[in-house]
Amino acid sequence: MDKNKNFVFMFDQPESGKKELLGGKGANLAEMTRIGLPVPYGFTITTTACNSYYEAGQAIPSEAEVQVLEALHTLEMKTGKQLGDPSNPLLVSVRSGAVHSMPGMMDTVLNLGMNDETVEGVAKLTNNPRFAYDSYRRFIQMFSDVVLDVDNFYFEQLLENTRTEKGYHSDTDFTAEEWKQVIEEFKKIVQRHAKRSFPENPKEQLFLTINAVFDSWNNQRAILYRRLHNIPSHLGTAVNIQSMVFGNMGDDSGTGVAFTRNPSTGEANLYGEYLINAQGEDVVAGIRTPQPIASLQQEMPDVYEQLSETCQLLENHYKDMQDIEFTVERGKLFILQTRTGKRTAQAAIRIAVELVRENIMDKREALTRVDPDQLNQLLHHHIDPNHKETQLANGLPASPGAATGQVVFDANEAEELSKSGKKVILVRPETTPDDIHGIVAAQATVTSRGGMTSHAAVVARGVGKACICGCESLKIHLESKQFHVGTTTVNHGDVITIDGSTGEIFLGEIPMIEPQLSDEFQLLLNWADEETKMDVRANADNPEDAAKALEFGAGGIGLCRTEHMFMDPSRIPTVQSMILSETNEERKDALDKLLPMQQQDFEGIFETMQGYPITVRLLDPPLHEFLPDKEELLVDVTKLQISNPRSKDLQEKQNLLRKVRVLEESNPMLGHRGCRLGMIHPEIYEMQAKAIFYAMSSVMKKGIKVNPEIMIPLVSHVNELKEMRQRVIHVGEQVQEETGQEFNYLIGTMIETPRAALTADQIAEEADFFSFGTNDLTQTTFGFSRDDAEGKFLQHYVEQDVLQQNPFVSLDQEGVGKLVESGVKLGRDTKPALKTGICGEHGGEKESIQFCFDLGMDYVSCSPFRVPAARLATAQATIRNEEINKLKEPQYN
Amino acid sequence: MDKNKNFVFMFDQPESGKKELLGGKGANLAEMTRIGLPVPYGFTITTTACNSYYEAGQAIPSEAEVQVLEALHTLEMKTGKQLGDPSNPLLVSVRSGAVHSMPGMMDTVLNLGMNDETVEGVAKLTNNPRFAYDSYRRFIQMFSDVVLDVDNFYFEQLLENTRTEKGYHSDTDFTAEEWKQVIEEFKKIVQRHAKRSFPENPKEQLFLTINAVFDSWNNQRAILYRRLHNIPSHLGTAVNIQSMVFGNMGDDSGTGVAFTRNPSTGEANLYGEYLINAQGEDVVAGIRTPQPIASLQQEMPDVYEQLSETCQLLENHYKDMQDIEFTVERGKLFILQTRTGKRTAQAAIRIAVELVRENIMDKREALTRVDPDQLNQLLHHHIDPNHKETQLANGLPASPGAATGQVVFDANEAEELSKSGKKVILVRPETTPDDIHGIVAAQATVTSRGGMTSHAAVVARGVGKACICGCESLKIHLESKQFHVGTTTVNHGDVITIDGSTGEIFLGEIPMIEPQLSDEFQLLLNWADEETKMDVRANADNPEDAAKALEFGAGGIGLCRTEHMFMDPSRIPTVQSMILSETNEERKDALDKLLPMQQQDFEGIFETMQGYPITVRLLDPPLHEFLPDKEELLVDVTKLQISNPRSKDLQEKQNLLRKVRVLEESNPMLGHRGCRLGMIHPEIYEMQAKAIFYAMSSVMKKGIKVNPEIMIPLVSHVNELKEMRQRVIHVGEQVQEETGQEFNYLIGTMIETPRAALTADQIAEEADFFSFGTNDLTQTTFGFSRDDAEGKFLQHYVEQDVLQQNPFVSLDQEGVGKLVESGVKLGRDTKPALKTGICGEHGGEKESIQFCFDLGMDYVSCSPFRVPAARLATAQATIRNEEINKLKEPQYN
Repeated sequence: MDKNKNFVFMFDQPESGKKELLGGKGANLAEMTRIGLPVPYGFTITTTACNSYYEAGQAIPSEAEVQVLEALHTLEMKTGKQLGDPSNPLLVSVRSGAVHSMPGMMDTVLNLGMNDETVEGVAKLTNNPRFAYDSYRRFIQMFSDVVLDVDNFYFEQLLENTRTEKGYHSDTDFTAEEWKQVIEEFKKIVQRHAKRSFPENPKEQLFLTINAVFDSWNNQRAILYRRLHNIPSHLGTAVNIQSMVFGNMGDDSGTGVAFTRNPSTGEANLYGEYLINAQGEDVVAGIRTPQPIASLQQEMPDVYEQLSETCQLLENHYKDMQDIEFTVERGKLFILQTRTGKRTAQAAIRIAVELVRENIMDKREALTRVDPDQLNQLLHHHIDPNHKETQLANGLPASPGAATGQVVFDANEAEELSKSGKKVILVRPETTPDDIHGIVAAQATVTSRGGMTSHAAVVARGVGKACICGCESLKIHLESKQFHVGTTTVNHGDVITIDGSTGEIFLGEIPMIEPQLSDEFQLLLNWADEETKMDVRANADNPEDAAKALEFGAGGIGLCRTEHMFMDPSRIPTVQSMILSETNEERKDALDKLLPMQQQDFEGIFETMQGYPITVRLLDPPLHEFLPDKEELLVDVTKLQISNPRSKDLQEKQNLLRKVRVLEESNPMLGHRGCRLGMIHPEIYEMQAKAIFYAMSSVMKKGIKVNPEIMIPLVSHVNELKEMRQRVIHVGEQVQEETGQEFNYLIGTMIETPRAALTADQIAEEADFFSFGTNDLTQTTFGFSRDDAEGKFLQHYVEQDVLQQNPFVSLDQEGVGKLVESGVKLGRDTKPALKTGICGEHGGEKESIQFCFDLGMDYVSCSPFRVPAARLATAQATIRNEEINKLKEPQYN
Repeated sequence: MDKNKNFVFMFDQPESGKKELLGGKGANLAEMTRIGLPVPYGFTITTTACNSYYEAGQAIPSEAEVQVLEALHTLEMKTGKQLGDPSNPLLVSVRSGAVHSMPGMMDTVLNLGMNDETVEGVAKLTNNPRFAYDSYRRFIQMFSDVVLDVDNFYFEQLLENTRTEKGYHSDTDFTAEEWKQVIEEFKKIVQRHAKRSFPENPKEQLFLTINAVFDSWNNQRAILYRRLHNIPSHLGTAVNIQSMVFGNMGDDSGTGVAFTRNPSTGEANLYGEYLINAQGEDVVAGIRTPQPIASLQQEMPDVYEQLSETCQLLENHYKDMQDIEFTVERGKLFILQTRTGKRTAQAAIRIAVELVRENIMDKREALTRVDPDQLNQLLHHHIDPNHKETQLANGLPASPGAATGQVVFDANEAEELSKSGKKVILVRPETTPDDIHGIVAAQATVTSRGGMTSHAAVVARGVGKACICGCESLKIHLESKQFHVGTTTVNHGDVITIDGSTGEIFLGEIPMIEPQLSDEFQLLLNWADEETKMDVRANADNPEDAAKALEFGAGGIGLCRTEHMFMDPSRIPTVQSMILSETNEERKDALDKLLPMQQQDFEGIFETMQGYPITVRLLDPPLHEFLPDKEELLVDVTKLQISNPRSKDLQEKQNLLRKVRVLEESNPMLGHRGCRLGMIHPEIYEMQAKAIFYAMSSVMKKGIKVNPEIMIPLVSHVNELKEMRQRVIHVGEQVQEETGQEFNYLIGTMIETPRAALTADQIAEEADFFSFGTNDLTQTTFGFSRDDAEGKFLQHYVEQDVLQQNPFVSLDQEGVGKLVESGVKLGRDTKPALKTGICGEHGGEKESIQFCFDLGMDYVSCSPFRVPAARLATAQATIRNEEINKLKEPQYN
């Protein structure tokens, strides 16, 4: 261990301030102290200490222990109070504080320093014994839960019983004497469940708590949260130790959370909520429903005024919307924390655009402030405003978006049903951090208690799921799995629809409408397009999707899959007869019938795209995908063999079964598909090429430009591409001669097998462009069949950190990325101007986009709904790249 | 075109002699001319000319045409004869001659220069009109077949009719006048089928023939032959034009083929056969059954003496067994061709060993003279000498090895039935080059006519298939699909057994015995082991295979697949109950039952291997492979639903079906298998590790050394290996403690996904060794499922030269090889001494072995029967490598 390491920093230590070292909360506390805000004094134990703690097998390094004691001494000198001193006791809060905000995921202990002696001192000094004992019992509760692992349920059960016994409605009804009795009972609970007495020594309390906070870095919900937000697990958490201020000292005290702008809509108004006579945990935990911040203006005008000014100051200082925790102790405002506030996509866009308008930041900076991943939530459906249903109930609009689903009351069940493909809405009296997996899995979450800033609401916003909170008219009965609203009963499994943007709940399914891009969103994307140096295309297989792609700003189609055209129910019989034909004549007949249909498909898309480039992929899936289901046939045949063994029907079905068996494959993903179809059945690819060229010719004759890029899929050897290219060119020449229409087009290939990437120099000889099919490339590189892997082991791998991320969601840069890099490099060694792009699902994911940008690709292509996010992500990649290049430039003074 | 290019070389031109330029035949003719052997004079048109011919769209370059005419003039000056001169006509042969010998695959025309005028001149000059007209009709026949594409059938039919009409038994019975009439009829056949008259102009004849020989480089059988023997198609063929000598000038003339040693056994005796009064084609085509060469000693003692001496001279000159074509014209010997003779593996070994003993070459050179690919044929079964059956017939032992199969009479049928998994023996009156695909596909070939040097016999030896030729007691009736031997009738589909080493044919199936290594073979392999710098291991899953591996000289087991141990029918119920267990208890019970079985398996192998290293691969295949067949279950359920819908049986089967469905996969090859099983069901791998360690402990207690290398399969991310490694180590510690037996072992991984190869630096951190599983790596790199590809498109790819070779047979060095290279390199960047080997089927294939050697791998592993070939191949790789290094050394004078 490095003896010289500084593991502890006071809030006002000048060399402090680094977020990586102090965590977000610690850095901000130091920063706020520096600019003179009323922050209770304290110190931060660094993330380095956390990592040393884990390296030492979960033990605080002795050097850090010494430094904590020194810092404590400084804190005692500054406050004039002393930890454990009955005459003037110091009480502190101990809070986690990671580099990236992980609200509520890790542990916090308040009122540390309380014991049987100091509680008397606090009672005497504040002249408020009820407050002193209330604080003490809170401390026992939190400490025992967090440090001694005693389930909070036991304490709450006792409180509930006592309340019922006394006929109290609220904890504030308890007298000091009653709290004293509760404390005695609490200590017994500790003795019984923790098998030890409650520690009276404040320094022991302190170090046990520091340990517990470090431990909480690796609790289940923190790990899940990190995975959801792609936070690396090696960062560790800092610990902030701060002298307590008390919001629970009476009606002139309180605690709250304020956002400098509305985190749901982005509106530029102070937003938040508070509770009078309460400690911070009461607001965040969502147990009492708090007051909106506007009420504070009436109740404590001076405090409100000071809070408003502080909020403005902090927003200007950090140049972004802030999420601020404050406490009012006997009429005096303290700022406990500030951080960049989480927000919905809608709010993120509006805030970014307005901060530019207010000259707080420039466009380029604004572009980097919106997370592209989040934008997809804006492109979800909304409830059709013209619907006729009357609402069942109304709660707080905690996270926008509309959803329909079956009611469930349990997070585990929500997860299970969702996995099996059901759409569910999770309904809970209140949400706790333990429900996080249910919120993630459900379409939406509704709670009857808790505010806009309850953890679950924060989680829902973070993952882009709709959420309604504090809908108090819902009377939820968990035991009978029902809820009532007035006289209406909604049972487990009933379908409801909710709108998280309005807080409305409806019975049954309500029609939805397609999302529109808001003006601010359009503006932001226009700024993005000004900055970006990479094209965004869409994957679209029909004119409707093509139109949607254009509407969302796509600069072309990066993948038009022709198999979807074959799947049309009216065409399937022709497709099947083509596949099953026994003679070349039969096959030719079927293909002749398909030709005009395909031509029509292409005409529609070409007309829609008006000269934008369109990458058309020739038939890719194995032919057996178009045939009837083998198992059904087998069952039919077995039945007919019993019921009607001499029927013609049996003969026909047996025949069909035989043919299906001939075509079936052990591993269709690696079987007879892609260009391997074209190699064995060139007449199919030739028909498709003909359809493309006829369509081109007829659309061009209308004066419309057409720019097709014909793509040969699943090439693994250059000779495959060479032969298919020749055949397409030959058809192209025939059609030009036949129609008298001259045209130009490109022929290229998907790079989607490792071999294609490894021999891209050879393949480029025959290709005008490369499109990286990273879905299949990920499957072959890992040896994962996505269909099998996700259900059987991939989820486990991601949950257990075997893999940092699902490689089908974010491109695996270490492995698959090496092949993509080699593919681009080798391809351009042969043809320096080779057009390259990506058309796997990764084409819409920001980190993968950055990776593609860094490789110098020309475009990304993704589903139309992900185009806006991709436009932003490509702009961000461009800006980041330019900033890095600027750093690399020589610096002259 | 390069005007200065020399497209034509006279046999005695000093700068000639290059095989690449002149082809094997041309280079040897020049070389023989140089050392003064009696070679008819002539010249060679180079392979470069052939390539220019194809580049020009199948047209002879004009420069080459000029050079041919010049060379012809030189030839005319030297022989004093002139092409087309009726008074002293020059007749020439025109033969193909590729760099690598491709016997009979390409075209040849003899007697070129014959026409209505020159035939008279020949008749007059030789005073032998019968000979002259016979030669003329032969020329028309060959020329029309080769150049004008007139089916030889028409000519043979006419000859057959004429023979029948005249009551002749042989063509030698024809008189000059009769041949004259035949010639007139032949010309009519030409006119009718070629739609042109037979060209009388000898120079036109010459150039048309040169064209045809060049064209024959790309005929179907030449392409097939090249593929079988891995001869690149860009090499092209040379054309040799040589003045004719005549073996058909009477009983003092003849033609034959001589091998300097027996090509079947390797015995050091002049071997071969000849025909009196015949031209070369009569011997090679197998139409007349020739005399053994020994008879020549009686018939023409002087010629025999001279031939013997020449053979000895040529063998000493070329330092290898020679295959010599000779012609005797009126008692004078001419050598028409010499080449290194093809031979069986058995002969190759014996010849190599004896040439060393005779001091003609050294051991290292001898090692390079035997083709490892060929050795596998020696390890096929032989007929048990103790069998009691009497033979049905006896023919010439044309290619060794024994085989049992159903009789078929048609090459196409042989191919089709073989493809569908049937074992067949092809029986033909005579074999022609068009039957080659049937010979390759059948287990063995039997002919009733033709000698040991007929094309089919040569082909059979080349591909290691058994063959019996000239079995004249077989009376074959193609129409009725039968053959008779005396009174016995054998029908199409009847089973016979043949032994190509003895020429014996038996009815029905005869027991076979396992092959033994001959003394010479052992000796050669010992020489190989002295030279080699690479280990050879075997893939073996049980003590019997392990013992066989040791017998064949393996230095360890490179792959012991534990799944075969699970497949034992007596264990399958336990394995199934383990897979289908619903509780952990049930699973544990089943695993507890499997543990002692697995332990016993390992004890057997460990005891057999006596301290040699053994790579044990933990369970690899998906669990559903051990379950009952889904389709059978589905049929059973469907039937029971009709016949007995309330039976318990139905319920149970439905239940089982449901579980089978849960485990089934879309792409099992890329599914839940390999270490992914161990990750999700660690208890299975732990049981296997325990079985290994218990076995180790108990075997070591007997004083036997054990060197296991535990291999984790299908790793794609280092974290998989890391976790599995920890679990194995943990079990190892437990077992050492429990048994009190200390032991050492390695833990490593298969590199068989592209990602593993690409991130081998990380993976090496957790691995003591890498074993490249190139079967799976080839599947994922190409995106080919072998099961699907080989039947559906891979064969087509290889036939159409899309792929040079089947990548599952010979490692694809361009693609898969890059990953293997990266795997070795990155692995050794992390651990310079990392042990690496290959355990795919490529481990027994010579080119792949060379590749692995060049990468610096420590060992190859292959099936026990391929170990001898691999030992030779590793020695060859070592020698080749040392020779290349020698070339790289600085040369001082």
